[in-house]
Amino acid sequence: MIQINALDAHEKGHQLKQDLQLLIDNKTKPIGALGTLEKIALQIGQIQQTITPSLKKPVVLVFAGDHGIVESGVSPYPQTVTAQMVHNFLLGGAAINVFAKQHRMLMRVIDSGVNYDFEQTPNLVHAKVAFGTKNFLHEPAMTVIQCEHAMTLGEAFVTKEVEQGSNVFAFGEMGIGNTSSASCLMSVLCGLPIAHCVGRGTGLNDAGLIKKTKILRKALEKHAVDNTDPIQVLATFGGFEIAMMAGAMLSAAKHQSILLIDGFIATAALLVAAKLQPNIVQYCIFSHSSGEAGHQAMLEHLKAEPLLNLGLRLGEGTGAVLAYPLVQSAVHFLNEMASFSTAGVSSAE
Amino acid sequence: MIQINALDAHEKGHQLKQDLQLLIDNKTKPIGALGTLEKIALQIGQIQQTITPSLKKPVVLVFAGDHGIVESGVSPYPQTVTAQMVHNFLLGGAAINVFAKQHRMLMRVIDSGVNYDFEQTPNLVHAKVAFGTKNFLHEPAMTVIQCEHAMTLGEAFVTKEVEQGSNVFAFGEMGIGNTSSASCLMSVLCGLPIAHCVGRGTGLNDAGLIKKTKILRKALEKHAVDNTDPIQVLATFGGFEIAMMAGAMLSAAKHQSILLIDGFIATAALLVAAKLQPNIVQYCIFSHSSGEAGHQAMLEHLKAEPLLNLGLRLGEGTGAVLAYPLVQSAVHFLNEMASFSTAGVSSAE
Repeated sequence: MIQINALDAHEKGHQLKQDLQLLIDNKTKPIGALGTLEKIALQIGQIQQTITPSLKKPVVLVFAGDHGIVESGVSPYPQTVTAQMVHNFLLGGAAINVFAKQHRMLMRVIDSGVNYDFEQTPNLVHAKVAFGTKNFLHEPAMTVIQCEHAMTLGEAFVTKEVEQGSNVFAFGEMGIGNTSSASCLMSVLCGLPIAHCVGRGTGLNDAGLIKKTKILRKALEKHAVDNTDPIQVLATFGGFEIAMMAGAMLSAAKHQSILLIDGFIATAALLVAAKLQPNIVQYCIFSHSSGEAGHQAMLEHLKAEPLLNLGLRLGEGTGAVLAYPLVQSAVHFLNEMASFSTAGVSSAE
Repeated sequence: MIQINALDAHEKGHQLKQDLQLLIDNKTKPIGALGTLEKIALQIGQIQQTITPSLKKPVVLVFAGDHGIVESGVSPYPQTVTAQMVHNFLLGGAAINVFAKQHRMLMRVIDSGVNYDFEQTPNLVHAKVAFGTKNFLHEPAMTVIQCEHAMTLGEAFVTKEVEQGSNVFAFGEMGIGNTSSASCLMSVLCGLPIAHCVGRGTGLNDAGLIKKTKILRKALEKHAVDNTDPIQVLATFGGFEIAMMAGAMLSAAKHQSILLIDGFIATAALLVAAKLQPNIVQYCIFSHSSGEAGHQAMLEHLKAEPLLNLGLRLGEGTGAVLAYPLVQSAVHFLNEMASFSTAGVSSAE
């Protein structure tokens, strides 16, 4: 089992925090005037255990998987869209391609469990656990063995990227039906009624939302899992892309990387990871508050303050990548701004 | 007088809006899933009157000026800090330097009226109207002639940048005491009690805030200007950097450029400009909701929805520049994302 240390657990942690705060406060600006960016600069300094942090080879990992629950009618899109969107990722036409290119982030597309037999291509990471999950209205989405296998694969991907020099990871996903998985994970792990956890996903109408909520309530009643065994909860509701992402998140934090958390699905994966290793949250930058109903409550459960609130509800890691320039700005001001003394600027009375 | 057209005033304006919306809705994402970025893409297409907009040579204009009101004790910083910070801008050590460099924006530092005799240097635009404004507690900050001169200079700077190919302008400022000017402008132009318009600026304590409010209330009572003549209001409360910025904003909108509006001071300049030409607001992207008390009410008065809410209260144009990558993302997704038909992705049922 991966162990993740608290940021102040290492030797000299308290001194480092003081040094960082002093550095931030002496920059040529009023105290606190860069708001949230100052908190991010402090956090990144603590994650990297240095007063001169740097962001290296940022990567967005896009995990794709299919969901058996789709056959029960929880999404306005057909399941085939998952594979179609994977092809779109590979051809560079999706939103995440555009934004990752804009911010010069590496992008990895991972088949965690899409219900489609992709041709071998070097642009796609072939890590299919199965051709989609089972329908969790009737049986667990996956076995515990499959779940642990998916998590281990996710851990290994991140370890490989870290070995190649990356220290920033954004987490994205694609999977028709995966807001249903995420809603059930949220309901169990946050202890909230399912109605508080269900949203319109890719665009359900009112009738569709009522139907989805009924189906998910029935599924939760059928399995009656509790939150003491997060792996069991994850295996029950899936999906493969969420399990692989949770493993990847744990690995990234273990390697003292920065985790850029996207929206509803990515935060659900983090709920699982944080149940296993609560310290992981200290390594997370929460990129945005999603337009998907329920995400706000998820963020509150994690005591997270998101950077953006733009009504994004696309997934793919788009919110995490869109917020990345703000993270860069936090590091840049810490490293590059003059101090009152070096710039010869008078400080406040 | 500059005339600014409404975005739908030109021929075929309605058709263009429909074409843009169709293009946005056919991108490979659920309808509306990019939230505010979709509104920005539509707005920029309308500003540039094209379905393939582009952002060219973005510039941040940083106007600096001093304020006579400082002698009455409205700021914890001495007036000399304005000139010191201008030197810091010229040496590249301020926050705005760091962020403008990060986003490859051109930066112009303009002496609109600093109380310091700068040496001639090509990096500084010498446009000093006077060595600081008068103390508006006792007399108008400037004459109407000075005010109109400052605005005309601001217009001319933007025209020159437009001729050199720029179509995006961020507006920033530096001026110890200028939250006092902005608060008075806001109180008169928004019709709000001064107590709703005053904040801590660069960091006043409780006693300082009470003192500042009392002084500004006294100044407003003394002059008793009303909001029917915005130039008179602007001349009364200053400052030179705000007047020059207001002129620059009007010119940018006239040239169908995109205006990136920063925080409390820049929005106060826009209040003046919008009183003269209400259509200017259609050309504005509101970058952030400032930590300075009063900014939220200013934004509400303008019916503006800001992109960021990060507790920034630094000025210099930092919020506008920090939000710029989101503006770029809006243009990139419009131009670069695949459509459902070209990507072979099924749409919703």
